[in-house]
Amino acid sequence: MAKGNVFVVTAPSGAGKTTLVAALLAADQNVQLSISFTTRAPRAGEVNGKDYHFVERAQFESMINAGELLEHAEVYGNYYGTSQTWINQVIENGRDILLEIDWQGAQQVRRLFPDSIGLFVLPPSVDVLETRLRNRGKDSEEIIARRMAAAREEISHVDEFDYVIVNEHIDEAVRDIVSIVRAERLKLPRQSARHVDLIASLKG
Amino acid sequence: MAKGNVFVVTAPSGAGKTTLVAALLAADQNVQLSISFTTRAPRAGEVNGKDYHFVERAQFESMINAGELLEHAEVYGNYYGTSQTWINQVIENGRDILLEIDWQGAQQVRRLFPDSIGLFVLPPSVDVLETRLRNRGKDSEEIIARRMAAAREEISHVDEFDYVIVNEHIDEAVRDIVSIVRAERLKLPRQSARHVDLIASLKG
Repeated sequence: MAKGNVFVVTAPSGAGKTTLVAALLAADQNVQLSISFTTRAPRAGEVNGKDYHFVERAQFESMINAGELLEHAEVYGNYYGTSQTWINQVIENGRDILLEIDWQGAQQVRRLFPDSIGLFVLPPSVDVLETRLRNRGKDSEEIIARRMAAAREEISHVDEFDYVIVNEHIDEAVRDIVSIVRAERLKLPRQSARHVDLIASLKG
Repeated sequence: MAKGNVFVVTAPSGAGKTTLVAALLAADQNVQLSISFTTRAPRAGEVNGKDYHFVERAQFESMINAGELLEHAEVYGNYYGTSQTWINQVIENGRDILLEIDWQGAQQVRRLFPDSIGLFVLPPSVDVLETRLRNRGKDSEEIIARRMAAAREEISHVDEFDYVIVNEHIDEAVRDIVSIVRAERLKLPRQSARHVDLIASLKG
């Protein structure tokens, strides 16, 4: 069994990351979004193991203490976090995991999964970025400026990633991300593991 | 200007490499097959700079002496060879070059183009390989056995390549090779060169 890959997708707000990831997940049944663990109660319609892994506070704290969380945060009294153990189970079964996280989370994932593959999504221009950040609502100039500063900080880490997608035309950008995920599965180490019997028989 | 990539595609006879490469060239206008230099006369319909670079014997020999050929051979009194200088010109213009060569040629290309990307195409089984080698004509068992031995020798070098495509279903294999070529263009070094101004302006 060839292990799955861990993909990290990072982008500034306004780069179109969420749309891109949704299109990838629709196009490729072998890659799945990382599912967070949380202690908050499920909302109407939320499914355990699909939207979140819903767990008790005591269980979450034992996961923290066991050091099995990639990252975690407490928001309004509820814990949220990503389990390294769970990701390992998924990739051991040959499926790919995708995490949508910021550059700090990406650094953490790289430490724990050195073979993970980092993708960074860029907007096609400063003007487009600013327009997209403005369109989010009727915000003050100060808030827009803060968002631009946050975007610039995110972008300053682009060189830490393996692939860069410039999201100018969404159709092309979707083909880009789908191609990267497909190509990564075809690399020698993964194919050698998947086709170990075939290769042995062909070598004769 | 981002430099183009050099792709090397290697396979045993019977793996379907030629069909796969033809489909890639049809699907992707930015990749082109390496064009050999030769001293033989053009045949009817052959176009200089498309089928071959047709050159005089003296010019070919000066290319040999200048050490600018990746490889060359003399067949029936005519020279054939691949020019490193010509490949460099093509990739400097941002186009990708693809070479269809055997494992020995691939080793030579890797020495001269350390960033080149190696793809190996495998048949889906020993039976399929043997069937394909038999179907080439009404050959003796001895000739078939010699072809199988040559195929096995080629396959013994699979671990020297970056990507492995198992050509079981041609449509899937075409998507594989197209994805690899597309993904390689999205790697950080190439995107950083292509989008140097964009990235500088986004970093602010």
